[in-house]
Amino acid sequence: MQTEIINIGDELLIGQVVNTNAAWMAEQMSLAGFPVHRISVIPDDPQQIMEALNLAGRQSDIILITGGLGPTKDDLTKDVLCRFFNTKLVFHEDTFRFIEQFFSSRGLKVTEINRKQAEVPKNCTVLPNPNGTAPGMWFEKAGEGRNRKSVFVSMPGVPFEMKALVTHEVLPRLKACFLPLNVLHHTILTQGIGESFLSDKLEDWETRLPENLHLAYLPQPGIVRLRITGQGDDEFLLRKQMEEETAKLKTLIPDYIFGEGDETLEAVVGSLLKEKGFTVTTAESCTGGYIAHLITSIPGSSAWYKGSVIAYSNEIKTKQLGVNETLLMAHGAVSEEVVKEMAVNIRGKFDSSYSIAISGIAGPDGGTEEKPVGTVWIAIAGPTGVRAHKYLFGDNRERNIRRSALQALNLLRKTILSDLSS
Amino acid sequence: MQTEIINIGDELLIGQVVNTNAAWMAEQMSLAGFPVHRISVIPDDPQQIMEALNLAGRQSDIILITGGLGPTKDDLTKDVLCRFFNTKLVFHEDTFRFIEQFFSSRGLKVTEINRKQAEVPKNCTVLPNPNGTAPGMWFEKAGEGRNRKSVFVSMPGVPFEMKALVTHEVLPRLKACFLPLNVLHHTILTQGIGESFLSDKLEDWETRLPENLHLAYLPQPGIVRLRITGQGDDEFLLRKQMEEETAKLKTLIPDYIFGEGDETLEAVVGSLLKEKGFTVTTAESCTGGYIAHLITSIPGSSAWYKGSVIAYSNEIKTKQLGVNETLLMAHGAVSEEVVKEMAVNIRGKFDSSYSIAISGIAGPDGGTEEKPVGTVWIAIAGPTGVRAHKYLFGDNRERNIRRSALQALNLLRKTILSDLSS
Repeated sequence: MQTEIINIGDELLIGQVVNTNAAWMAEQMSLAGFPVHRISVIPDDPQQIMEALNLAGRQSDIILITGGLGPTKDDLTKDVLCRFFNTKLVFHEDTFRFIEQFFSSRGLKVTEINRKQAEVPKNCTVLPNPNGTAPGMWFEKAGEGRNRKSVFVSMPGVPFEMKALVTHEVLPRLKACFLPLNVLHHTILTQGIGESFLSDKLEDWETRLPENLHLAYLPQPGIVRLRITGQGDDEFLLRKQMEEETAKLKTLIPDYIFGEGDETLEAVVGSLLKEKGFTVTTAESCTGGYIAHLITSIPGSSAWYKGSVIAYSNEIKTKQLGVNETLLMAHGAVSEEVVKEMAVNIRGKFDSSYSIAISGIAGPDGGTEEKPVGTVWIAIAGPTGVRAHKYLFGDNRERNIRRSALQALNLLRKTILSDLSS
Repeated sequence: MQTEIINIGDELLIGQVVNTNAAWMAEQMSLAGFPVHRISVIPDDPQQIMEALNLAGRQSDIILITGGLGPTKDDLTKDVLCRFFNTKLVFHEDTFRFIEQFFSSRGLKVTEINRKQAEVPKNCTVLPNPNGTAPGMWFEKAGEGRNRKSVFVSMPGVPFEMKALVTHEVLPRLKACFLPLNVLHHTILTQGIGESFLSDKLEDWETRLPENLHLAYLPQPGIVRLRITGQGDDEFLLRKQMEEETAKLKTLIPDYIFGEGDETLEAVVGSLLKEKGFTVTTAESCTGGYIAHLITSIPGSSAWYKGSVIAYSNEIKTKQLGVNETLLMAHGAVSEEVVKEMAVNIRGKFDSSYSIAISGIAGPDGGTEEKPVGTVWIAIAGPTGVRAHKYLFGDNRERNIRRSALQALNLLRKTILSDLSS
């Protein structure tokens, strides 16, 4: 079974947009047992779209298409689809009613252009798009020179619209039409250790893995995801094999694992706080609100998060967080002493169970020989006291902010677990 | 003239790695006047590589290939290249001497595998790779069914190795072989208006554009970038045309434009604050620190940003921001009255030139009939007083946070400009 992805969009061909859609789609398809054999990026050009559809129809069973839709491009791609599938555009009532509702709920009126978005090729199945005005379209066509039909799915290129369509419409329908490969995946989430150090610790285990199991390292700034993939006809046996090997892996790196599967560190920390009825506050300097942003990105976080002071200047650290001015002058803002006071004071002032304080040099400027760019102090205060930890990250501002925030959240998680077990 | 990119690598087809190489290469080629017509991602598989080369040779003049090289994969791709170009591997002395030096300077010895990296197809021109052990390879071949030769360049997939090869070897050689197109791009950045409403306002202008100019809409949550692309033999005339049309476009949507080119809204606001010597503070509820994060993502932001209070709970709004409790009870946290008090109080307490306050219902829960999910109040306080604005965004938490933050930053920008001009 062959699967391919076609991304339509001039913006991808002049490098204005990185094709993250392709990576996400390829991962989801692969996880669902439909490995992708080719990704093609082509321009918003009718002839090139037609050629790509012709080629794909001869080679693949499943063809996922993104882009070329949306109010300003609509006619072009839909016109090609009509020619390729030998049909014509018809007005789709349900889609139009949805578009009307979509706009009226935002206090807006439907324009003529929006009305045209409700036109779809006659022989497609419309896949409702709850997040936008261009619906997904599912086509089936007898493959040229092949004895099976091919499925073509056309979706908008806006990432969150495409993602909802793939998850809720496309994958369930594909599973009903095709027999996916029997592949199991399990992901272990680690924080605070780099890929090469992990690989040193896991080398022996990895070389002894059964032939049908495979480990992949998926690094992101501050996080490495370890994905074990297994393939086999007997699902019961495969599942047992995966569980055994996952258990072995976990014993090798217990200090770095914070979760499994699709969890995020901020969601794991949120669940722990919620479950135990604890609250948290933050006093941030170098991360400038990014820890608070991660915490509040989780729906319902008002149950465990009260608020923060972002103390970017020393003036705010002393006047609003009550950091002792002499201490600040003596040790500098990026120091164990200051970060501990920040943590203790925000916890008292905002009355929370735990608090995080952070101060560091995110860069690119502000580094000294003694405290180079990437130096970060993190303190966690809680019912059993306050502890501070020093880190030296790299020289990239964006990565330093992200790594610092994740490290702080993981320290909070470990502190709570340690307090609970003592 | 047709240009295409072929990226070889299993890791790109399981979504393990986002294809940033393709975006970078496409941008460089486009800026140099060799617009890319197709990007293909294929697996480390000899048959698929051969098919891709065959197809590319029939369609394109320039074919840039990355990946499939490196010590563990080398044989596979080079073997396919030998078959495709009807040649055999030969030992390349200069490359071997470079590899020896590369390893000895790192205190390492050359292994048999590294020695094999010095073997290259006989009929290629070797492009020296100063950053790694696999050299670039330049091939020329008469196009099948075409009356021109095609150029194929094979490069390693490691980004910084590929980038140096493209910049120092590939582009200069291409410019000597082919006549690049004269293409200019200009991007206008808008906030606070959706793609379909922009397109309504620009329709007349767009239909009257000269044939060699083209407009593209590049939407992101909260932001739409408008890219004008022009093509023409006379660069002076083309530049003049682009400037005239850009000026016309700007008069049609002056209220929504915040910048041009590769700027971000947070950088534009930062530059304005810095230039005028103003400072800003924020009091955030529903955005939970995301505005502060955007502001502090800009290097040097401590010059214009002092700090914030994130008041996620009502308790923090009253106790720390001094919001009147009766007012809060009477109007609710998401109201004009409360958001104005938050803005005025944080500005006074943290002593800044301007302040942003925001309170809303990010979702998915917490909405009511009167104040549905997506309702957001934003206030800007400054030397000339305080003003509040109400918005109704959508039902997606992540997008509501992002759109609210961008709207708030743009309101701040407009308020400062209006204060300066009055």
